[in-house]
Amino acid sequence: MGDICLNDVRSTPRRRVWGVSRIGYFGPQGTFTEQAVRQLADPETNEFVPFATTPAVVAAVRAGEVDRGCVPVENSVEGAVPATMDALALGEPVVAVAEHVLQVEFSLLVREGMTLDAIRTVASHPHGLAQVREWLETNLPKATAIATSSTAAAAKEVLAGQFDAAVSAPVAALHYPLTALVTGLGDVKDAKTRFLLLAKPGALPAPTGADRTSLVAVTPNEVGALSNVLHELALREINLTRLEARPTREVFGTYRFYLDVEGHIAEQRIGDALAALHRRCLEVRFLGSYPRTDSEPTVVRTPTTDADFSAAAEWLAAVRRGELA
Amino acid sequence: MGDICLNDVRSTPRRRVWGVSRIGYFGPQGTFTEQAVRQLADPETNEFVPFATTPAVVAAVRAGEVDRGCVPVENSVEGAVPATMDALALGEPVVAVAEHVLQVEFSLLVREGMTLDAIRTVASHPHGLAQVREWLETNLPKATAIATSSTAAAAKEVLAGQFDAAVSAPVAALHYPLTALVTGLGDVKDAKTRFLLLAKPGALPAPTGADRTSLVAVTPNEVGALSNVLHELALREINLTRLEARPTREVFGTYRFYLDVEGHIAEQRIGDALAALHRRCLEVRFLGSYPRTDSEPTVVRTPTTDADFSAAAEWLAAVRRGELA
Repeated sequence: MGDICLNDVRSTPRRRVWGVSRIGYFGPQGTFTEQAVRQLADPETNEFVPFATTPAVVAAVRAGEVDRGCVPVENSVEGAVPATMDALALGEPVVAVAEHVLQVEFSLLVREGMTLDAIRTVASHPHGLAQVREWLETNLPKATAIATSSTAAAAKEVLAGQFDAAVSAPVAALHYPLTALVTGLGDVKDAKTRFLLLAKPGALPAPTGADRTSLVAVTPNEVGALSNVLHELALREINLTRLEARPTREVFGTYRFYLDVEGHIAEQRIGDALAALHRRCLEVRFLGSYPRTDSEPTVVRTPTTDADFSAAAEWLAAVRRGELA
Repeated sequence: MGDICLNDVRSTPRRRVWGVSRIGYFGPQGTFTEQAVRQLADPETNEFVPFATTPAVVAAVRAGEVDRGCVPVENSVEGAVPATMDALALGEPVVAVAEHVLQVEFSLLVREGMTLDAIRTVASHPHGLAQVREWLETNLPKATAIATSSTAAAAKEVLAGQFDAAVSAPVAALHYPLTALVTGLGDVKDAKTRFLLLAKPGALPAPTGADRTSLVAVTPNEVGALSNVLHELALREINLTRLEARPTREVFGTYRFYLDVEGHIAEQRIGDALAALHRRCLEVRFLGSYPRTDSEPTVVRTPTTDADFSAAAEWLAAVRRGELA
């Protein structure tokens, strides 16, 4: 079943003293999460530490064992997304401070001298195999597809001579001296995986005007509960960019909703909406406000600009003081 | 990459004349969809016809090539769900007339005489392998996991002597003379897959008091569009049992929502809500009203019973006639 040997890559701790963060990520080395973490943080000035599971990454952030943690949250090739979402929703809070959206393109990695015609076995994570199935059926119809515990484990086993080819993240070639026989593989055009960089709660990233806010809301077991949540957002002209529903395992009939919205909690409309959800929901957990990868600015118009909220608050205060009616 | 040989299982058409339906299903023989179709229709009096993909099943229903078609819509082991949803949302309409929820438990199928200790290769669909990974790592740590095009193809290749064991649907043992060395396999407790039985639009199944209605709604690219849809349902006390969002590929910024609600379109509150969605949405497609597998009755209370709606309609008509005010 493949083998995740994380100890070897973690055996030489080299925590530096100044200006360097330890960043945990869902490993092993050579997976798409490593590809993402290299976009989120400079490999020259940070130390990247692979963990075997996404809950282990989140736990390391909570324990302060790493300064940041990188995990997939949507469409992950290695299949860790539900585990990520559970880890974020339960236990001590952690918050996202950055996101990265990665184009998912696989490379077919082989040992020097191997040709397409000679490939008899192709290894990858099961979800990776599923994503290149059409390509394999067309181009390597006689090859046997081998499932490994990660796309990187596949590359490692190809290096060891156990299999002929690995369907891996391009970054795997950094760690294993293999040749990319084919690049840009993937049956689904524009397949993307989204990653979050997590930290312990603390000072929030400053608003950039192109931000996203993530949260978890657990609604009561009532007709219309989700409608009310979305209505609170809509009343404040807040655009939803993602909504996922999962039943909570704790209380029958209650749902946990993962919501991403455009905007930063420092904005009055976002803060006002989140406070309303806090009133309405069994639980609201803030998962962070952070800059969007695509830098697309959030458009905020009257009547939900900060100026509108401030003017309304001033009017209300004046009325309450008896100065206006 | 495995081999789906559907022609052989379809080579002896035996369409009977009376009282028998041809039911297409997402094949090949021996998969979880066959397991579901055997719960939805009597194998003694119906003919089951496997198809290679879920869009092919839907196309056969549209063409009248089969009377009914069975496809997975949630959490399928064979990974066909997004294809199913696209096939239902686009093209000529088809509607669900029944559902079945199947407990996903795998069997480890081997040739006569094979023991657990002797297993060196284990084959299954990539999603099947992903769902039993922990079990395999614990119980067959030295076995290589082989990905095939379906759980049934894995069984077929085990029978052919190509691999030692298959992780398959229990029903695969009906078609391939293999032994179930272990049953009830699956890392996730209570993993379930839901299937729909599809037909061409026609007379609807009669309301049973424990029904579900499925629909697709495409909302305009506006803040609050989904909130409005859910609010129309909530105002009529309609309980949502499933909500999935997918971007449409046709128009940027528009989303296609798959909604399941409790109730039957014959009920006034459901009809009233669907008519409201028809006004609000770019497109509403009815995917059927059908009895729930769990037979859990829908509770409808004032002010949204059929009697409430009828009384209100009578009052309005009388006011319009000038008889009441």
